[in-house]
Amino acid sequence: MTFVKSTDSAAGSYADQVNAYIERGVPRMFEMGIRVVELDEGSVVGMAPLASNDNHLGSMYAGTLFGLAEMLGGALARPIVDFAHFYPTVKQVTIDFKRPARSDIKGTARLDSETIRRVRAEAKADGRSEFEVVAELTDADGRMVATTHGTYQVRSIGR
Amino acid sequence: MTFVKSTDSAAGSYADQVNAYIERGVPRMFEMGIRVVELDEGSVVGMAPLASNDNHLGSMYAGTLFGLAEMLGGALARPIVDFAHFYPTVKQVTIDFKRPARSDIKGTARLDSETIRRVRAEAKADGRSEFEVVAELTDADGRMVATTHGTYQVRSIGR
Repeated sequence: MTFVKSTDSAAGSYADQVNAYIERGVPRMFEMGIRVVELDEGSVVGMAPLASNDNHLGSMYAGTLFGLAEMLGGALARPIVDFAHFYPTVKQVTIDFKRPARSDIKGTARLDSETIRRVRAEAKADGRSEFEVVAELTDADGRMVATTHGTYQVRSIGR
Repeated sequence: MTFVKSTDSAAGSYADQVNAYIERGVPRMFEMGIRVVELDEGSVVGMAPLASNDNHLGSMYAGTLFGLAEMLGGALARPIVDFAHFYPTVKQVTIDFKRPARSDIKGTARLDSETIRRVRAEAKADGRSEFEVVAELTDADGRMVATTHGTYQVRSIGR
């Protein structure tokens, strides 16, 4: 069993590190209020606020739901590779909207330990690796509002 | 051949109407700078600005590319049904990211006349109709940066 650690440096938890990365690297996402709230190896939880993201139907804008789910796949890369040397990128996402999102929304996603080992090994050997992530977005009552299936890569910076 | 009209009221062109609808109904999308620039029956062109939407790779944030493409399907509903009586909604979108988007991005999408006739008839008869939209996002040099395939609905307000 892999020892699950929430940080690998003095720079704060993985969640803090990824939120700082978003603020610096993708200011639009940060401005939308999309945040990591928990991040460990193989497991991530994120949030997006309804306030400032509501639409004409009184529910969360589809683009914010997409942004929350899309972020989770990149965040899952952080405990696997150092973002000082690798960056996450997204190749494809399918999002299914299940019901109106009438509260703040929580997003969750996981990676199994076999995928984590493969991505870490390929990134070290080849400078890049690809992985797939299923994410679930739920409302304050625990109802599923959207699901996504995404394909992500980590790539060595400078290649 | 259908007579293609750019407006059906004194409230300005379809493009102006949908931009006003976005500003009022989905303020987050409006703030992202996502706009309709041309809208006629069966054809829409939109834009999103790189400035204020750039990411850690010097290219446009994936969420803004999604937002631009997703909007096009809803906009295409406007020349078919009156947004005073129907609203557009999205059920599913798949987005494929092809290359970094290093300029302002143009989005285009079309609906064929058979689909337009069907949606208009179903909306009138049933209060709702579903349709599929393929959108293409291109950079300032005309290179494809992303494509989407989305499933949308128009629904009667109040049902």
